[in-house]
Amino acid sequence: MEQESSKSLQKLRGLRREHKELINLMPLQTGGILTNAAREALIEFADGYSVCDFCQGSLCNVSNPPIRDFVQELLPQFLGCEVATVTHGAREAKFMIMHSLARPGDSILVDANKHYTTVVAAERVGLNVIEVPNSGHPEFKVDVNEYAPLIKEHAPKLILLTYPDGNYGNLPDAKRLGEISQEYDIPYVLNGAYAVGRMPLSMEQIGVDFIVGSGHKSMASAGPAGVTGMKKKWEEVVLRKSGKYRNKDIELLGCSIRGVPLITLMASFPSVKERVQHWDEQVSKAQWFSAELEKLGFRQLGEKPHRHDLLHFDAPALYEISKRVREKGYFVYKELKERGIWGPQPGLARSFKVSTFAVDRQQLGYVIDSFKAILSKYA
Amino acid sequence: MEQESSKSLQKLRGLRREHKELINLMPLQTGGILTNAAREALIEFADGYSVCDFCQGSLCNVSNPPIRDFVQELLPQFLGCEVATVTHGAREAKFMIMHSLARPGDSILVDANKHYTTVVAAERVGLNVIEVPNSGHPEFKVDVNEYAPLIKEHAPKLILLTYPDGNYGNLPDAKRLGEISQEYDIPYVLNGAYAVGRMPLSMEQIGVDFIVGSGHKSMASAGPAGVTGMKKKWEEVVLRKSGKYRNKDIELLGCSIRGVPLITLMASFPSVKERVQHWDEQVSKAQWFSAELEKLGFRQLGEKPHRHDLLHFDAPALYEISKRVREKGYFVYKELKERGIWGPQPGLARSFKVSTFAVDRQQLGYVIDSFKAILSKYA
Repeated sequence: MEQESSKSLQKLRGLRREHKELINLMPLQTGGILTNAAREALIEFADGYSVCDFCQGSLCNVSNPPIRDFVQELLPQFLGCEVATVTHGAREAKFMIMHSLARPGDSILVDANKHYTTVVAAERVGLNVIEVPNSGHPEFKVDVNEYAPLIKEHAPKLILLTYPDGNYGNLPDAKRLGEISQEYDIPYVLNGAYAVGRMPLSMEQIGVDFIVGSGHKSMASAGPAGVTGMKKKWEEVVLRKSGKYRNKDIELLGCSIRGVPLITLMASFPSVKERVQHWDEQVSKAQWFSAELEKLGFRQLGEKPHRHDLLHFDAPALYEISKRVREKGYFVYKELKERGIWGPQPGLARSFKVSTFAVDRQQLGYVIDSFKAILSKYA
Repeated sequence: MEQESSKSLQKLRGLRREHKELINLMPLQTGGILTNAAREALIEFADGYSVCDFCQGSLCNVSNPPIRDFVQELLPQFLGCEVATVTHGAREAKFMIMHSLARPGDSILVDANKHYTTVVAAERVGLNVIEVPNSGHPEFKVDVNEYAPLIKEHAPKLILLTYPDGNYGNLPDAKRLGEISQEYDIPYVLNGAYAVGRMPLSMEQIGVDFIVGSGHKSMASAGPAGVTGMKKKWEEVVLRKSGKYRNKDIELLGCSIRGVPLITLMASFPSVKERVQHWDEQVSKAQWFSAELEKLGFRQLGEKPHRHDLLHFDAPALYEISKRVREKGYFVYKELKERGIWGPQPGLARSFKVSTFAVDRQQLGYVIDSFKAILSKYA
């Protein structure tokens, strides 16, 4: 036991990340790669609670570093909302909203492409989750018009749409759902964990009550970090204050990301604000990459033409190989890693997900050539 | 508006921390200063979700970096508990426990010296908070025997003790309360945000059901991060899994600190495990410092002799000065900062809190001399 423990302790020394220098196509990670400014801020504010030097009791009111300006001015502008706050991440924001708007036993309505944490957050509150189905293989599209009859049937306390979903990168008609939510007067939550910080987005233009974003997924921030925008009318519901400590948010337990994730979120923000302006280039890059991979016999799932950098491919050729090689599905990971590429989930071969967000066309050309080479090698 | 926004945006560039190089006596920060190993790991794993490269669906099961060994082997040993997990911080752990063990309308029993987040977490669950009083000025001691009659009166769902509290650094008789909790068969939560990572502590020896620690407060970790230990019997209650996603913790919404705070917590752990062995030196250093400040006319509040590095002083002499200087209470902060010292909350003069944890006797000697010099200057 003692020996085992000292071995485990030894493992904690000199922690290294294997994938650090590789071409990164990992969908969870491509939008969360830090800017240089964030790397500097990370070191500057490394120590625990270092963002709290000048706290007067509320994280979002700290003026040095300029958290107040960021949360109360820049974020609302960026999200196109009236009130914003910061959270530990998108899932924690969803829980906060559900916990504020619904009671155990209530129902909520979500799209079938939801992130698993939408369901887990609802479970934590004790809610029934009703799903709006998708169209199934190969496009898995969600038709938001199908929310309407289910709203009538289940009288949900809120509706949620995943925009885009993390499995297929589909972008359903969020604006149309805004009209439906207004028609039925039901609070509408947009999970934009893969949208906010990647593509231009305005809560007001879409017509949602809440927008939820993820710092580590799409805002070039260390994890975990998140942002939430809301209509003014929800401030007193979701950001209600403690009865005993008047400047403390109940749902945030006082303060949320009191440390480095917030400082990286802030330091990257100028670049993030700028990069969403180039979203059309990201989309055409993704479409080109998808078309090239399809030429190799892979089949892109989800919407076509695709409008997001998250791409999911059926890969029958890789799957056939995986059945006859020693490493099974891991051969894809191994072969790509040997070529300096990191992305598809290790072990999966039948289908795989990648994101083209963090790499340029030249690097993607190399990725395409690498897939070609792998297919030839095992042909 | 546009101009204002670009000014705010400008402020986000080149974020700097004023207090970075100062002698740090800030109670919230002295236990959260990173080790060099943590600083290296912070940079290595800077990017969002970089700890998740080899995730198979559960953060606490990731073997590279060795999160599984850390959470499932090293932490339980360190905390003297059967089961451990990681959280966003002590407050989030308290909420998780309360949310799992109590229902809206239930009561819980806490010490009067509790951290404000204990109350806010209870409010978030919808609980009534009953307080066990302290002895008032100047010692503010909590006699844990007073829990017993209040348990009989209110039938609380759990009892909580703050060990030590952040205001006075008092260490109440946690072990005696363990006996009481067993006598009445009531779950007992120890908030060790200022203990775990500073002083030796064993959940089993004290006889608690849950122990809660803070990475950024006492474990040389970037914020926010926390640890929780519990008895095996609570695992299925607090760490219950999603009905739909069998490897996802409901209360952790799947995963908690999925990023840099966890990696710094792990990288610092070998040093933290070692440093708690030198707690007696910390205590004698604090006692010596306290005695020296009392010679200057300050009066240490809380237990005497003091058994923790968190120190709270009444400072009538500083208060008198603050009434007649231009900067009011801020003169203390300003004078100390000019001398390279950072600690007491800016603006406060009547009383102030410091922690001697992160500095040696020589530096503390300089701090004492600085207080002397400030008192002389304004005499």
